Amino acid sequence: MEAPLSGVSAPARLAADGEGVGHDELALAARNHGLPLEALRYDVTPPGLHYVLVHYDIPPTDGDDWRLTVGGLVRDRLDLDLPALRAFPTETLRVTMECAGNGRARLAPRPVSQPWLVEAVGTAEWTGVPLRVLLEEAGVEAGAVDVVFTGADHGVERGVEQDYQRALPLAVATGEDPPVLVAHAMNGMPLPPQHGHPLRLVVPGWYGMAHVKWLRDISVRDRPFDGFQQNVAYRYRQDADEAGEPVDRIRPRALLLPPGFPDFMSRTRVVDAGPVTLTGRAWSGAGPVVRVEVSADDGRTWADAEVAPPGDHRWAWQAWHAVWEARPGDHVLTVRAHDADGHAQPVDQPWNRGGFGNNLVQRVPVHCR
Amino acid sequence: MEAPLSGVSAPARLAADGEGVGHDELALAARNHGLPLEALRYDVTPPGLHYVLVHYDIPPTDGDDWRLTVGGLVRDRLDLDLPALRAFPTETLRVTMECAGNGRARLAPRPVSQPWLVEAVGTAEWTGVPLRVLLEEAGVEAGAVDVVFTGADHGVERGVEQDYQRALPLAVATGEDPPVLVAHAMNGMPLPPQHGHPLRLVVPGWYGMAHVKWLRDISVRDRPFDGFQQNVAYRYRQDADEAGEPVDRIRPRALLLPPGFPDFMSRTRVVDAGPVTLTGRAWSGAGPVVRVEVSADDGRTWADAEVAPPGDHRWAWQAWHAVWEARPGDHVLTVRAHDADGHAQPVDQPWNRGGFGNNLVQRVPVHCR
Repeated sequence: MEAPLSGVSAPARLAADGEGVGHDELALAARNHGLPLEALRYDVTPPGLHYVLVHYDIPPTDGDDWRLTVGGLVRDRLDLDLPALRAFPTETLRVTMECAGNGRARLAPRPVSQPWLVEAVGTAEWTGVPLRVLLEEAGVEAGAVDVVFTGADHGVERGVEQDYQRALPLAVATGEDPPVLVAHAMNGMPLPPQHGHPLRLVVPGWYGMAHVKWLRDISVRDRPFDGFQQNVAYRYRQDADEAGEPVDRIRPRALLLPPGFPDFMSRTRVVDAGPVTLTGRAWSGAGPVVRVEVSADDGRTWADAEVAPPGDHRWAWQAWHAVWEARPGDHVLTVRAHDADGHAQPVDQPWNRGGFGNNLVQRVPVHCR
Repeated sequence: MEAPLSGVSAPARLAADGEGVGHDELALAARNHGLPLEALRYDVTPPGLHYVLVHYDIPPTDGDDWRLTVGGLVRDRLDLDLPALRAFPTETLRVTMECAGNGRARLAPRPVSQPWLVEAVGTAEWTGVPLRVLLEEAGVEAGAVDVVFTGADHGVERGVEQDYQRALPLAVATGEDPPVLVAHAMNGMPLPPQHGHPLRLVVPGWYGMAHVKWLRDISVRDRPFDGFQQNVAYRYRQDADEAGEPVDRIRPRALLLPPGFPDFMSRTRVVDAGPVTLTGRAWSGAGPVVRVEVSADDGRTWADAEVAPPGDHRWAWQAWHAVWEARPGDHVLTVRAHDADGHAQPVDQPWNRGGFGNNLVQRVPVHCR
C-alpha cells in the first residue's frame, strides 16, 4: 500500500552528475547552521554558534507544563514535571556533538538532504540528570533490550509520519562512563528552543541523531527498536535495498581554524609570509585523539601537530597546534586526526548512500603574500 | 592596476542558466543562518534563531580592552572604554532586522553570494547609547555630511582588502525618532560574538548592512563616504557598470508561520481539513504595515488578514492572522504586506544585479488531508 503522504514526501535520492544544490537543500541550509570555523577558537561554543539540525519544526514548548514519562518494561512508571526532574542529582559534562550528516555535500554523487560541508559541530557544557538514575528509579525489568526516546517534533519523512524517535541499547543507556544525560541546561542556561528546550538527551561520543531533543517519553523495550530513524534513516549503506550498518559513534575528525583573513565569497584565506601558528580542534567518539597531522601541500606530505590531552573533558574536542612556515604562493592546508582506537580520517573520498560519517579531511585554500 | 588580491577574490557574477548553488555559496549558507520560520511565533527572537550574516570572520573580541573612538570633524575626539560608554544614558528598542540580500536565491539569474530564500530576519530588544548623544558629546563641527562606522572584521571582497565600513547621513545618525543606537546588549544580555560583541550599531528601519558590528570607530566626514560597502556593494543596479541607487530602508514583507507539520526534505506542509488559523509577521522600514493579504491559491485571489497595530514597537514586526478554510488537496499559501508609505510586495519577480531588497512574496506549499 502506498503511504498516505507519499505525494508530499518523496523517497531519498542522489543528485545527478553536475546537479547543483537545489532550493529544497538550500531551505535546510538556511534554517539549520554549522559552526563558523573561526568559532573553533572557543573551548566551549557560545550560544548561537553551535551547529543546529532540526528534522521537522522546533516545537512550541512551554516549560511550565512539560512532562517526561518513563515507561515500558519498568516496575514503576514515572511521570515527572520539570521541578521533579530537576530534584534528581545532576552531572555536567563538556561534550562535542557532531551531525552524522557532516560532510555530506562533499560526496559524489551527493545524497540530497541537509548539505553540510565540514562545519556541523559544536561543544557545550550540558547539565542534566544521568539517564541511569531515572531508569534505576523506574526499575528496569528483566528482558529489557533497548530504550526508546521520543521527542515532541512531528513531521513526515520519506512518506512516514512520525514523532522523532531513536533508541539506545540498554548498556549504553545505563552507562556510567560516560553517563547519558537528560539535560535541562546548556552552558549554564536553560536549553534554547533549537537545542531541545526544555529537555534533551545527550549521548557523549555519539553523532547528533542520538541526542533526542524536546524529550517527552522514555520507553524500555524487550526487543530491538525498528523505528524509521533507527532502521530506515541513519544507516551506512551502498545500495538503497540493503539493511546496512547503524550510524552510532562519531568518527575522528580534525578541523583547522582558518588562518589569516578570508575572501568573502570563496572563503580562501590570505596570510603574510613567515611563521603562521595553525590551531584547531580534533575529536572522536571511539577514543581520545592521539595524533593530528598537518599538510600544507594538499596531503602530499604531513607533519605532526602538538595535541593537548583530553584532560578532564574526555568527551570534548582536543586543541592542537602546529607552526607552518608560509612562503609566498597558493597552498592548500589540510589536517587529519587519529584516535586511540586506531581510526584515522580518510584523504580519499569514501561514500555511502545516506551521506553519513563522511570525515574526509578538510581542505583550506590559502594565499600567502 | 590590478588589485593585489584579485587572484583570490573574484568579481561579482551571476549564475548561469540552470546552475545550481555551488560550494562557495553553500559554505556561506552553512556558516550564516536565517530564522527557522516556526520561530515567527516569538515576539522577540530567542538567541541563536535571529538571522546572522557575517562578511568576513567573527573577530576575536575581548571586551575588557575594547575601545570605541569618535573622531573626524568633531570638536573633542572621544576614546571610550566599555565602562565609559555604558555610563552614558541608554535606550532599549525592539527592532526587526533583515538582510538586504534576503530573497536573493529566488532571483533568476541568481547573483552568486549568500543564497537566502526568505528567512534572513529576526527581532531583538537592543539596548545602547543613542548615537546622537555621543555625537553631541564630541561636538560635530560645521560642514559635516556623513558619519562613517568601522568594524573590526577584516577581509577581502572583489579584490578590495578592507575593514567593514558603512556610513549614514548626518541627519539619520543624529535622529531622535528613531534613534540610532550604539548597542551593547541584545535581549538583556551582552551581545553574542556573531551579533557584534561588544558593540554594534542599530539603525531602526534599515537593512542589516547598516548595523555595523564589532564597532570600533565612528568618524564624522565633510564629504559623502565612497567606501566599498557604500558605493560598490549594496547598490540597486541592473548593469555592472552603472552607479545604481543605494540600498537603505527595508522594503515591506510579510511572512507566514508555516501551518501544520512539515515534510523533512521539501518543507511542504500537511494540515487537516477545516479552519486553519494562519499567523505571521509583517514589517517595513518606510512606515507601519497597514494591510496584509493572504492567498490560498498562489496569488490568484486574496483576502485581508487582521493586522496588529505597531503599538509601542514601531520598528518591530507586526503580528497578523487570518482564518483559512482548508479543503483536501494541494494548495500554495502566500501573503503580501502593504505599508503606510504606499509600498506593497511584488507578486512577480523583480530583479537587480546584487540581489538586494527582493521582497517577492513567500510561497508555502500545503497538502490538506
